[in-house]
Amino acid sequence: MVASEVRALFAVASRPEIVSLAGGMPNVSALPMDEIGEIVRRVLAERGAMALQYGSAQGDPVLREQICDVMSLEGIKASADDVIVTVGSQQALDLVTRVFVDPGDVVLAEAPTYVTAINTFAAFQADIVHVPMDEDGVLPEALEERLDSLAAAGRRVKFFYTVPNFQNPAGVTMNARRRGQVLEICRRHNLLVLEDNPYGLLRYEGEPMRALRADAPDNVIYLGSFSKTLSPGFRIGWALAPSSVRAKLVLAAESAMLSHSSFNQMVVGQYLASHPWREQVKDFNEMYRERRDAMLGALEAMMPASSTWTRPEGGFFVWATLPEGLDAKAMLPRAVSQRVAYVPGTGFFATDDGHRNMRLSFCYPTPEQIREGVRRLVGVIEAEIKLRDTFGSASTPSSRGGDAPGPDLP
Amino acid sequence: MVASEVRALFAVASRPEIVSLAGGMPNVSALPMDEIGEIVRRVLAERGAMALQYGSAQGDPVLREQICDVMSLEGIKASADDVIVTVGSQQALDLVTRVFVDPGDVVLAEAPTYVTAINTFAAFQADIVHVPMDEDGVLPEALEERLDSLAAAGRRVKFFYTVPNFQNPAGVTMNARRRGQVLEICRRHNLLVLEDNPYGLLRYEGEPMRALRADAPDNVIYLGSFSKTLSPGFRIGWALAPSSVRAKLVLAAESAMLSHSSFNQMVVGQYLASHPWREQVKDFNEMYRERRDAMLGALEAMMPASSTWTRPEGGFFVWATLPEGLDAKAMLPRAVSQRVAYVPGTGFFATDDGHRNMRLSFCYPTPEQIREGVRRLVGVIEAEIKLRDTFGSASTPSSRGGDAPGPDLP
Repeated sequence: MVASEVRALFAVASRPEIVSLAGGMPNVSALPMDEIGEIVRRVLAERGAMALQYGSAQGDPVLREQICDVMSLEGIKASADDVIVTVGSQQALDLVTRVFVDPGDVVLAEAPTYVTAINTFAAFQADIVHVPMDEDGVLPEALEERLDSLAAAGRRVKFFYTVPNFQNPAGVTMNARRRGQVLEICRRHNLLVLEDNPYGLLRYEGEPMRALRADAPDNVIYLGSFSKTLSPGFRIGWALAPSSVRAKLVLAAESAMLSHSSFNQMVVGQYLASHPWREQVKDFNEMYRERRDAMLGALEAMMPASSTWTRPEGGFFVWATLPEGLDAKAMLPRAVSQRVAYVPGTGFFATDDGHRNMRLSFCYPTPEQIREGVRRLVGVIEAEIKLRDTFGSASTPSSRGGDAPGPDLP
Repeated sequence: MVASEVRALFAVASRPEIVSLAGGMPNVSALPMDEIGEIVRRVLAERGAMALQYGSAQGDPVLREQICDVMSLEGIKASADDVIVTVGSQQALDLVTRVFVDPGDVVLAEAPTYVTAINTFAAFQADIVHVPMDEDGVLPEALEERLDSLAAAGRRVKFFYTVPNFQNPAGVTMNARRRGQVLEICRRHNLLVLEDNPYGLLRYEGEPMRALRADAPDNVIYLGSFSKTLSPGFRIGWALAPSSVRAKLVLAAESAMLSHSSFNQMVVGQYLASHPWREQVKDFNEMYRERRDAMLGALEAMMPASSTWTRPEGGFFVWATLPEGLDAKAMLPRAVSQRVAYVPGTGFFATDDGHRNMRLSFCYPTPEQIREGVRRLVGVIEAEIKLRDTFGSASTPSSRGGDAPGPDLP
């Protein structure tokens, strides 16, 4: 399947009869719409002329202060001067890539990694070199080995891109020891870290982790977002950058959009100021915990032996590995015909990997839908196993990866 | 003065005691805030879960249809399939440049041209080649001559960028005959036209012009915006592109921001559907006409002989040329100390031109403020003329242009 076919399949997958374990959409219907309506009304009534006017390319200074408060929950001490408000953290990812990457430069990224990051790095003609992970995050020795061999080959490496918490797609969190090791290696190799942390506050068990940025303010660009803790509809994300980089990012933002929406920034600022948003995040976490538990429980109860999956402590995603001889991408049309959808693993690699993998998301469907979705999925997998046992393989292996299925939309 | 000094000066220029003829901010306080509040409330109450969710990278299909209706006012027949909603038309300009321009490519632009377009083209390492204008727009013979000599030099030209209506900064409109000639020349040279039209509907006299796109659908990318006809605070602009280009722009938009704000798109869509927006534009035009007349009247009454200026039929800007021997950029600090600000002409050229020019905007200050601003400005100019007559020149000429004063913000 090429990218257009995957897109067509996703269009089908958005039909109501299909349980989609594919999308990365937060469940915004849990938000108090009336209160948000009242917040918006207040912004327009009290500060409408400012909200409907151009703003600065760097973003609303009030909101930038509030963003520093949000980041302090993960150990970050920062000045609002070093924050740039962006159109989701995706725009921040794009601007950082634009500022740093020349064609042929190397970008290091976990294996697997966020699909739209692959697209963005590729759009600026970076060579993406993957670093393997296990259940505790990226492997420091593999990172070091990659850096050594790239240096030996005379390659220019621009940054190491990581989603340290509840990674998209792997659901894995980098543990504290690894964080220290990664920072030490990157400092020694004079390599910038690009820390993408949209899910950090969505933790359903265990203790919050310190952000990488908290322990290396001069060597990390941190990306954050309100898309998962509030709503993606306002498109408010941010970058926190070392002062030496910040001015370049502001100029890039100016070229990219002149300024972000003053209206949206003031609405989110008013929400943070007047709504108990930490309680809202706690409510989200209870809802998502129940969904995660529904998925892990269903997988545990139904998945055939020799399949494995990760057990995320937060975020939206479980990463499953099918039994030998199965191909998640080749299997997808049959899954959709059985009314369940997922994202095949191949899209999360710049290389020809991930054929046995799939990303299963538990953020959007209800617990009952999740259980029914896993039941249908397991039926498909079992039919594939039978085919494999009869014919030696379930299907012609799918073509090589990299033809990413587009962004994390339904 | 370098760019940072100009920025510092603009910070001073935003003080209340200063009449700023510098900014390009629309007068949004003329909007019916209560009605907009009610529109937003309805969107959240009736379609909140959709408004607060991710959307598509190309933009809301309903809004894209409505955008086609808006464009039909200037003779454009288009399909919503070929419209991409962007973060202001600035993002569309950025995406088009990103898709088309490789380092060293040539981009043709009017002389003078929109300052942030210069910044964007320069950010992608384009060589900007100017084409002169007169009071009827760009000179077709000069465009042809440039294309011939660039072809002879083996240079690759990517597009001709034009603001055909009430140009920023020159206030000039390309007449109908010139439009035909420009399209004919570009077709013959197989050159794409990038038509940037944020002000087209803000006409205070004369008849509406047909968009260039209306007569060359396969050869023009058209950029539009609601920033001036509604509000810049929602950041809703768009590109209308030939089908062959559109898919590339959508992919670039996906990399740049994943998707624009569903919320903002639905609010603007609801405004267009339920508010008499054509009447609102008429109201804006009456307000802005009065301001333009105040500026032209004051210039006529007070400006010293041997200075000249353009007479725009719409839009926000008058382009003035100072008497020989004066330098608008060098004069700016003295103007600000006399409590009036403008944008020096040098920023609107990629070359060392525009020293005798200034952009005077009449969109934001009231008619009384405009008259007072021109009175102060004329006082400064007359003092400069005295200096020139005594010492041979008013001041050391300012350094070369290109150090753009940032975007058109106050």
